[in-house]
Amino acid sequence: MKIGGKHYRTIWPLGENAVEVIDQTKLPHEFVTLTLRSAADCAHAIKTMIVRGAPLIGATAAYGIALGMREDASDETLDRAHDMLAETRPTAINLRWALVRMRDHLRNHPREERAALAWKEAAAICDEDVETCRSIGEHGLKIFREAAAKKSGTLNVLTHCNAGWLACVDWGTALAPIYMAHDAGIPIHVWVDETRPRNQGASLTAFELGAHGVPHTIIADNAGGHYMQAGRVDLCIVGTDRVTANGDVANKIGTYLKALAARDNNIPFYVALPSSTIDWTLSSGRDIPIEERSADELLKMTGRLPNGGIATVEIAAPGSPAANPGFDVTPARLITGFVTERGFCAANDLLSLFPERNKK
Amino acid sequence: MKIGGKHYRTIWPLGENAVEVIDQTKLPHEFVTLTLRSAADCAHAIKTMIVRGAPLIGATAAYGIALGMREDASDETLDRAHDMLAETRPTAINLRWALVRMRDHLRNHPREERAALAWKEAAAICDEDVETCRSIGEHGLKIFREAAAKKSGTLNVLTHCNAGWLACVDWGTALAPIYMAHDAGIPIHVWVDETRPRNQGASLTAFELGAHGVPHTIIADNAGGHYMQAGRVDLCIVGTDRVTANGDVANKIGTYLKALAARDNNIPFYVALPSSTIDWTLSSGRDIPIEERSADELLKMTGRLPNGGIATVEIAAPGSPAANPGFDVTPARLITGFVTERGFCAANDLLSLFPERNKK
Repeated sequence: MKIGGKHYRTIWPLGENAVEVIDQTKLPHEFVTLTLRSAADCAHAIKTMIVRGAPLIGATAAYGIALGMREDASDETLDRAHDMLAETRPTAINLRWALVRMRDHLRNHPREERAALAWKEAAAICDEDVETCRSIGEHGLKIFREAAAKKSGTLNVLTHCNAGWLACVDWGTALAPIYMAHDAGIPIHVWVDETRPRNQGASLTAFELGAHGVPHTIIADNAGGHYMQAGRVDLCIVGTDRVTANGDVANKIGTYLKALAARDNNIPFYVALPSSTIDWTLSSGRDIPIEERSADELLKMTGRLPNGGIATVEIAAPGSPAANPGFDVTPARLITGFVTERGFCAANDLLSLFPERNKK
Repeated sequence: MKIGGKHYRTIWPLGENAVEVIDQTKLPHEFVTLTLRSAADCAHAIKTMIVRGAPLIGATAAYGIALGMREDASDETLDRAHDMLAETRPTAINLRWALVRMRDHLRNHPREERAALAWKEAAAICDEDVETCRSIGEHGLKIFREAAAKKSGTLNVLTHCNAGWLACVDWGTALAPIYMAHDAGIPIHVWVDETRPRNQGASLTAFELGAHGVPHTIIADNAGGHYMQAGRVDLCIVGTDRVTANGDVANKIGTYLKALAARDNNIPFYVALPSSTIDWTLSSGRDIPIEERSADELLKMTGRLPNGGIATVEIAAPGSPAANPGFDVTPARLITGFVTERGFCAANDLLSLFPERNKK
């Protein structure tokens, strides 16, 4: 995607000893990139949400392994880097998927080859993610075309959190079909859930859509149900951090509430994901670990002062405790279907797209 | 209720030519009171949410009429003050109820008596509101006692926005039974929805509960569904700005989403209200006008700087538009029942408590 006319991915190699990322904690107030030079740098970037979004976390973790192999290509370092990176975020499964792929790939090769192989594999994960997201966009575009054909005027899409190119290497998952629909001339408008407490909607999704020229409106997370009741939402589409084999979806806290409202108003609710987000080892969303994050994310807010400076203010009643679960689980029964790189399937029918996973 | 050991109402007369209110736009960062000396002052205070909450808006409007009568007790001034005050907020019905009560009362008396009568009537509206809220608290307490008896350990209650003493003259509606349960020794903990975009939960409800010593936790509006799924919410209770004859409830934007989640998890969802909040002229919530408020409420946030100063920061992507509906409508089918000063009734059975409204 382009920022100020220049094409960016969210992560890219700097030579062969470092990777550069966009510091997403600074958006939308500043566009700053940051150099990661070690596995520990990558772990820190994931943990502090300098990079976030399930696919991008996976890509960053892959480069974390690769940077670790530059320092020391031993089995011990490989395992240590794997474990350190795996511990950064508990809910997103792409992190584990990328780490296991890297470790399994490298273990079978002699140490002296590992650094170069790891660098190549991390780059492959990134390139594949771009292609995967493009495919998700194309499959989603078909759904959007059908929805647009059913009505006159603008297609109103609601999304929660950020599942755009900033959450991936490029394109995005939920936003990929939005970009493609807009580029194809389908009149489209996006309701952007603010997405408290970290405001990824207001900060990142609005930033992305604005940069691409897609009409959008930021709304409080509280407002989506009202707009659905009023007939002003035609479809919902979100990303996900982990899908279990039965089709339950872990995604940013609050997704479940929007899925309930969509169901109550007969509005389709789609989840867009690369197949690496499916956790075939879990049979139900009840088993997904839910990350508890710092109360400060809720109690403090960073923004631009009238003088152009950046400040962080405490917004709540002093002394009141806060709790901050990062994700919730939307049961498959509330989801119309999944848009993956292989196409569309109903939420309770993942095996139709992934028959090789059928254990029988 | 007490602040720093001193008992306060939210509005009180200063002699007979002014009223004093707590400036709720300054909470929780500063506790400041403000003097209102005219009908226009009262209208401004309501419009800018210096005072807010359906019952308190009604009380302030009543004093607005009374202050107008001090200046000029003519029919024209009475009508003008009525209309000016009525236009300040479209959704809350107590405003209209109080204004009509004041106007009808004064119209039947000669001009020279109106100033004194109006002052007395406004004070009566305030005193009645306190008694009404106390009754709501007592009826709600019975429900809380029954809920607490069914489980061991702490009773976990979720509330949205602020329906406490700051929303009324004293006690509150939804929070009145919480205070009474806490005072009665029932172990109770309150999940406080932050309530974007104006954060009345994090700013006002948390402030109130903290001042009274009631255990509570601020959560993002997005988080309530997750806690309900996890079995960590025993009941929900909220206030309302207008209830229609069929039991539909207008309340702070986002209430509908919590009611959907409560229903999905078999959790009782109560609405606490004085009977003055019932609009018997509307047969369905679809007819309630929904106030659209400034986008700035969503795009800017005020809080405390590390140096103790107060600052307002812009938090969203620059240039992105925002929309800000203030209320949504929760259909009666999602509501377990109403707690009023007359007792409890099912949401679709308001006439059982108000048989005099039966038109047959």
